[in-house]
Amino acid sequence: MEHTSFVVVDLLGTLAFAVSGAVAARQRHLDPFGVFAVAYVAACGGGIIRDLCLGSLPPVGMADWRYVACVAVVSAATIVAQPLLDRLEHPIVFFDSLGLGFFAVVGAHKSLAMGNNVEVALLLGTITGVGGGVLRDVLLNRVPIILEKEIYALAALAGAAVQVVGQLNGYSLFVTPWVAASVCLLLRSLAVRYSWSLPRT
Amino acid sequence: MEHTSFVVVDLLGTLAFAVSGAVAARQRHLDPFGVFAVAYVAACGGGIIRDLCLGSLPPVGMADWRYVACVAVVSAATIVAQPLLDRLEHPIVFFDSLGLGFFAVVGAHKSLAMGNNVEVALLLGTITGVGGGVLRDVLLNRVPIILEKEIYALAALAGAAVQVVGQLNGYSLFVTPWVAASVCLLLRSLAVRYSWSLPRT
Amino acid sequence: MEHTSFVVVDLLGTLAFAVSGAVAARQRHLDPFGVFAVAYVAACGGGIIRDLCLGSLPPVGMADWRYVACVAVVSAATIVAQPLLDRLEHPIVFFDSLGLGFFAVVGAHKSLAMGNNVEVALLLGTITGVGGGVLRDVLLNRVPIILEKEIYALAALAGAAVQVVGQLNGYSLFVTPWVAASVCLLLRSLAVRYSWSLPRT
Repeated sequence: MEHTSFVVVDLLGTLAFAVSGAVAARQRHLDPFGVFAVAYVAACGGGIIRDLCLGSLPPVGMADWRYVACVAVVSAATIVAQPLLDRLEHPIVFFDSLGLGFFAVVGAHKSLAMGNNVEVALLLGTITGVGGGVLRDVLLNRVPIILEKEIYALAALAGAAVQVVGQLNGYSLFVTPWVAASVCLLLRSLAVRYSWSLPRT
Repeated sequence: MEHTSFVVVDLLGTLAFAVSGAVAARQRHLDPFGVFAVAYVAACGGGIIRDLCLGSLPPVGMADWRYVACVAVVSAATIVAQPLLDRLEHPIVFFDSLGLGFFAVVGAHKSLAMGNNVEVALLLGTITGVGGGVLRDVLLNRVPIILEKEIYALAALAGAAVQVVGQLNGYSLFVTPWVAASVCLLLRSLAVRYSWSLPRT
Repeated sequence: MEHTSFVVVDLLGTLAFAVSGAVAARQRHLDPFGVFAVAYVAACGGGIIRDLCLGSLPPVGMADWRYVACVAVVSAATIVAQPLLDRLEHPIVFFDSLGLGFFAVVGAHKSLAMGNNVEVALLLGTITGVGGGVLRDVLLNRVPIILEKEIYALAALAGAAVQVVGQLNGYSLFVTPWVAASVCLLLRSLAVRYSWSLPRT
């Protein structure tokens, strides 16, 4: 987990989900501390579930000050930079999609690195990716984003799968996370842009 | 936990809750992957909470491929066999009740087998039974089934209690789970059929 | 954790949150077992999350009979003493605020006592304080109290911070929890009384 690439990827995912959480909290007109709290849950919730399932305790999102610092800086910046964010049409969806791939990759990598099988890596990659967004929406009493019509969890699974395949075949850990996260982001972005969805049941 | 009876009971519970989750997801017209995701949460959520509390990591619902395979098969079958399921009046309630007893028994057994006291076995038996259904309903933004008027969590507790008493008195582990799960299913079914409920407060 | 003060403080917090949960469940006219279940989640949910994150398993709220006994006694008493509680204007808010400080203190202390850093102590103190109330509200499909307009999680953080500072400076563990919990209760009570809130965003 201490491989430089993954620390960077994990912090980038934290930044992205913190923005999605802070923006969602601001839409509910919470106070600054509430904005921080929702941003923290969105940014670190998925990783905390992952670390609980892996027995990697205390969860890195609690023990490493950089995660909390990321969330604090993003929360403050979101409050100050509201006019800027308002120009983005769907800031929650955008930053959520960005973080989705980063976290799916980190979850899959950490699971494998701690000696778990491929199934655990795929499941925990996906859960790490979607967990923070689901917790954010449950906390805010919104319909969880995972139930939206466009491809979402499937994109996280795709990112996790690319990371697992790359890692098991010995590709450089400086390359795989970026490729895998890009696959997820691309799939999700195209899905949102062109309203791609699996057929409804 | 590796006792044959309990593996069978656990997989039967997984099948039953997967059906309840898949049917609930289809009522919300989710896509096939969403159906799988909700079925997985319903089928494996209670066991994951149990394993987190017992420190049995990674949770068996993630590490053992048979659980995911169960959920995948059930999700596909539910989508194909919709007309069949539509004939059942309350398929969610029925399969939910079926799984409730199986999971209460497995939760109680595993807690005792890992050296915990009777209190932990009763609580984790009940929580394993009701956990998946509660998570399914929270995820789908439905009123949690545990708040319904008929006897529900009490039936799970009864099943867990029968398992604990049987196990502590040395009855065969080939017999106790079936008796205990039947007690839970019977109690819950009668409660639904005759609208049994404790007096409201 | 076995320091006498903290056992007392933890059980007082359990009593307070059990009342808040039982009263909330009664407002939804749940049956007696449902009242117990919601009271248990409110009273022990925060501590269970804390113990999962600390790897202190099984969680003390499951393994120690005194917690369940507290919840059972409170649930019964709440049902019998309804007329008395009805005279309080906002019994959920009052008992919730009372428990908030006790649990924030216990969460911060236990985190430090198990060798974690200050950041973990502050985060887990706050999460222990607010966790039970959030779970109670999610389970009952209410808007989580943490989203209310008055200062809430910030009061828990303040209590945790006072405990951390006191403990790291070697003040008596017979004194610090009471001072820290009082700071939290006072801050929260004044916020409710005078509608103190941070500026909305």
